[in-house]
Amino acid sequence: MMKVLEGIAASSGIAIAKAYRLENPDLTVEKKAISNVAEEVARFEAAIAKAKEELETIRARALEELGEDKAAIFSAHLLVLSDPELLNPVKEKIETESVNAEYALRETASMFITMFESMDNEYMKERAADIRDVTTRVLAHLLGVSVSNPSMISEEVIIIAEDLTPSDTAQLNRKYVKGFTTDIGGRTSHSAIMARSMEIPAVVGTKSVTAEIQNGDIVIVDGLHGKVIVNPSVEVVAEYEKKRAHFAAQKAEWAKLVNERTITKDGHHVELAANIGTPDDVKGVLENGAEGIGLYRTEFLYMGRDQLPTEEEQFEAYKTVLERMDGKPVVVRTLDIGGDKELPYLDLPKEMNPFLGFRAIRLCLEMQDMFRTQLRALLRASVYGNLKIMFPMIATLDEFRQAKAILLEEKAKLQAEGVQVSDNIEVGMMVEIPAAAILADQFAKEVDFFSIGTNDLIQYTMAADRMNERISYLYQPYNPAILRLISSVIDAAHKEGKWAGMCGEMAGDAIAIPILLGLGLDEFSMSATSILRARSQMKKLSKEEAARFKETILSMRTAEEVVAFVKETFHIE
Amino acid sequence: MMKVLEGIAASSGIAIAKAYRLENPDLTVEKKAISNVAEEVARFEAAIAKAKEELETIRARALEELGEDKAAIFSAHLLVLSDPELLNPVKEKIETESVNAEYALRETASMFITMFESMDNEYMKERAADIRDVTTRVLAHLLGVSVSNPSMISEEVIIIAEDLTPSDTAQLNRKYVKGFTTDIGGRTSHSAIMARSMEIPAVVGTKSVTAEIQNGDIVIVDGLHGKVIVNPSVEVVAEYEKKRAHFAAQKAEWAKLVNERTITKDGHHVELAANIGTPDDVKGVLENGAEGIGLYRTEFLYMGRDQLPTEEEQFEAYKTVLERMDGKPVVVRTLDIGGDKELPYLDLPKEMNPFLGFRAIRLCLEMQDMFRTQLRALLRASVYGNLKIMFPMIATLDEFRQAKAILLEEKAKLQAEGVQVSDNIEVGMMVEIPAAAILADQFAKEVDFFSIGTNDLIQYTMAADRMNERISYLYQPYNPAILRLISSVIDAAHKEGKWAGMCGEMAGDAIAIPILLGLGLDEFSMSATSILRARSQMKKLSKEEAARFKETILSMRTAEEVVAFVKETFHIE
Repeated sequence: MMKVLEGIAASSGIAIAKAYRLENPDLTVEKKAISNVAEEVARFEAAIAKAKEELETIRARALEELGEDKAAIFSAHLLVLSDPELLNPVKEKIETESVNAEYALRETASMFITMFESMDNEYMKERAADIRDVTTRVLAHLLGVSVSNPSMISEEVIIIAEDLTPSDTAQLNRKYVKGFTTDIGGRTSHSAIMARSMEIPAVVGTKSVTAEIQNGDIVIVDGLHGKVIVNPSVEVVAEYEKKRAHFAAQKAEWAKLVNERTITKDGHHVELAANIGTPDDVKGVLENGAEGIGLYRTEFLYMGRDQLPTEEEQFEAYKTVLERMDGKPVVVRTLDIGGDKELPYLDLPKEMNPFLGFRAIRLCLEMQDMFRTQLRALLRASVYGNLKIMFPMIATLDEFRQAKAILLEEKAKLQAEGVQVSDNIEVGMMVEIPAAAILADQFAKEVDFFSIGTNDLIQYTMAADRMNERISYLYQPYNPAILRLISSVIDAAHKEGKWAGMCGEMAGDAIAIPILLGLGLDEFSMSATSILRARSQMKKLSKEEAARFKETILSMRTAEEVVAFVKETFHIE
Repeated sequence: MMKVLEGIAASSGIAIAKAYRLENPDLTVEKKAISNVAEEVARFEAAIAKAKEELETIRARALEELGEDKAAIFSAHLLVLSDPELLNPVKEKIETESVNAEYALRETASMFITMFESMDNEYMKERAADIRDVTTRVLAHLLGVSVSNPSMISEEVIIIAEDLTPSDTAQLNRKYVKGFTTDIGGRTSHSAIMARSMEIPAVVGTKSVTAEIQNGDIVIVDGLHGKVIVNPSVEVVAEYEKKRAHFAAQKAEWAKLVNERTITKDGHHVELAANIGTPDDVKGVLENGAEGIGLYRTEFLYMGRDQLPTEEEQFEAYKTVLERMDGKPVVVRTLDIGGDKELPYLDLPKEMNPFLGFRAIRLCLEMQDMFRTQLRALLRASVYGNLKIMFPMIATLDEFRQAKAILLEEKAKLQAEGVQVSDNIEVGMMVEIPAAAILADQFAKEVDFFSIGTNDLIQYTMAADRMNERISYLYQPYNPAILRLISSVIDAAHKEGKWAGMCGEMAGDAIAIPILLGLGLDEFSMSATSILRARSQMKKLSKEEAARFKETILSMRTAEEVVAFVKETFHIE
């Protein structure tokens, strides 16, 4: 029986393959009294041996197909499996308490996991994760259930999962994993972002794929329309094969645009830029023909380590990006940490509402040593390219003035030290807090540019946590209230001769593009993989025609009205 | 040495008295081996006896001075102290483990507290709180330290505390407690709201009163300007005695306005209404001459119990309020629960950002049985007075349309059952989400009125949790962005012939009043105790003059500019 499930189109493209369920096996453990303890210890050792063998195979395959980085994860797991500090206490427990191996292992492992996790040290926390993974594997052998090994997949599949964790995605091999679909998540969830960067079609937030799909079912993931089709009829497969071919042809067509500037049908230029997280991402940016970097998220420099990055480390990263971009604009956002993005070594207090909390510029203005180090690194790097600096989470003009004053202080200090600093650094701000958008006309007098951060702007304007599934209906990029804010930010910038960009998910959306073009947006910054599609769309649009619909759209009452109107007017599927 | 500390003016008036520190004693317990267990059990019993004696005295005094309600708290504590289910295990522990009484008590009590707290039952959770209070008292006797007994205060004092909990404030006797000041808290914290309803001058959020003030210091609490003066000179005391007398005279003057309508100097009427939580609050509303109730928070009907209130219980409450208000308007807000306001019996999932979560109308539209019961109770009560219904946390027109449709369905059902329902019920909405404020012109076509909820509107517009101390600088009612939103909501209402009110803390603020009058606000709903002061202020203001400053204020850049301008223009201290 063919079934069609609806979800959120998280990464475009179409995939057809067999289902592969990524499951968490039932590892419920009961405590049992054991009469023959020697036999039980032997059973434990056999499970360890099997797990080791399995991990050796996985490691070899990972090394071959995914590279050294990914393989190292499994080397770490193998080390844990040979560690007497973990194994001996388990055996002792079996022997002295006459309990079953499953129970002895779980109790011992829990103790180590709790201990490592409570340490304020990123390295130790990773060890806790390793012990957890390994324990799961050994327990599964003891209990006779199987664990999923996504890295062992050796035929073309569609992954079916409740959700995908970063460690799951680390193991996915693009050669075999053709698409994925999950029960939970939204367009901005981790798994959705990963899917777009891996260019794998994905549909998330279906609520029911794990309930509805069995291993081996044939599944179509339509990442263009947010549909998942289970056990399609022959006709439907043929239809989607055609769509897949059409999409592939389209992509080939788009690829020809890689060296073009982005010019609308009526001759207006708009800038299509990319969002990046690390210097390594620049490769994808250039391959996809971006005209600049509209958002360099510097958080990654601070994450996955146990102390702040030095000025030198940061300088090297910023310099690398600027040099590789070879004079194209690079907009760097200063540290946006706090809230949901924690840095263990900063030891920030837990907050009741982290999204409304002490984060980003609020935190930087207080922890000035850290902020000044970043600004010095940026200023020193500025001579290697076309640097623009923007501050995140600005709510008041006072905050912007303070941040800019600190930047100018550091610039003066560097110059006094004889260090070269560019004199052409534009200093702007993210517009992601409603107060800043509403007062954009005043801000525009003091900033060099705006970059609208729609992910946060939408969540604050709608008062709805974008990670909260229960109210996901309120994440409405096309709500007329959001469009009005965006429009007034753009108008405010232009009135003062400044430019306005956008670096949220919305900037790359096919429905948003004609609206934003009509509102006069100057720069669109998106996932690198969206750029060629967006360029192709822009070339077919007339800016002046799009602008004629501005008032109509801004006086609509609901998001549904806007979407229906835009789809019809601009012939978007 | 005289010291002046700055804080947030949380409740107006001036108080001068001796400091009384409300402290949490150090109850650190060490485990000790005991050789003479019989002696240790006797020591435990002696501490119990002393605690009982103390509680008897406190209960008698509470009964005499605070009434039966408050005294009942201590009766419950006395019951715990006679409960063999708690006492016997402690004695057994001392005897079988040869440990000290402090340790045995703490371990046993913790076990009970954890057990009761984990039960999904409000009654059991209160028992946990009782055991905790009683354990603290007995431990203090065992350790030879003293606990604060605010209900035992028998001379005029100023309370100095880190913060005040609801149970602390329940014990305060207005006869002796002249004012209070705390380290933490803001204008909308629990302690601040309590202070205003008790009409006790208070300054909160000083950060340092507990560090700077000793028992017996003379303290002036200036709740008008947010100042705390420690050990003032004779001249300063004289000056503040004068200010206190002046404030008392002013209050006497205000009292004469109790039966007047609120008319500005140039003859415009504005409505001054009160915010209430229970039918009991209506007394204060009438005593303070309110012209209506602008916000009846119905949450209290649902709190402190272990199941939903019945339709009948709700009907009685709504009817009582409507009857007592005798035809004056009563705006009832439907259930605003979820987020930080939990109902244990609903068993809602914990959320990462409750202020941006599944709450209020979002929850009611999903839990429709509960919502329909409330609406039926309201509809049935509507014939007893002048009822207006408003929905909280409306973000989209769809939500408003859905809520109104459900209301009309229930009305039709009741009428079909032959129940009388008023045909003049206005149906409006809270404007507390930026999206609703921005799109107010569209909402105005479908609602009967707006009530602007500034507490939430400010926190969402500034993206700053109003309970979070670290970013309290961002709670800016006078930020021009907030004033622009308010102004556009009022204009939108008037354009469609509707009215706009405000029911946040801001509506009663002396600096806000001339601004809001100038923006054209029709209804100001505030703490009952603020009404007469506000009426007096209104009578001295000209609406037309205030309106002339509208454009000037709305084009300012910062909250500081606005406040300075308003203070100077309208001669506000």
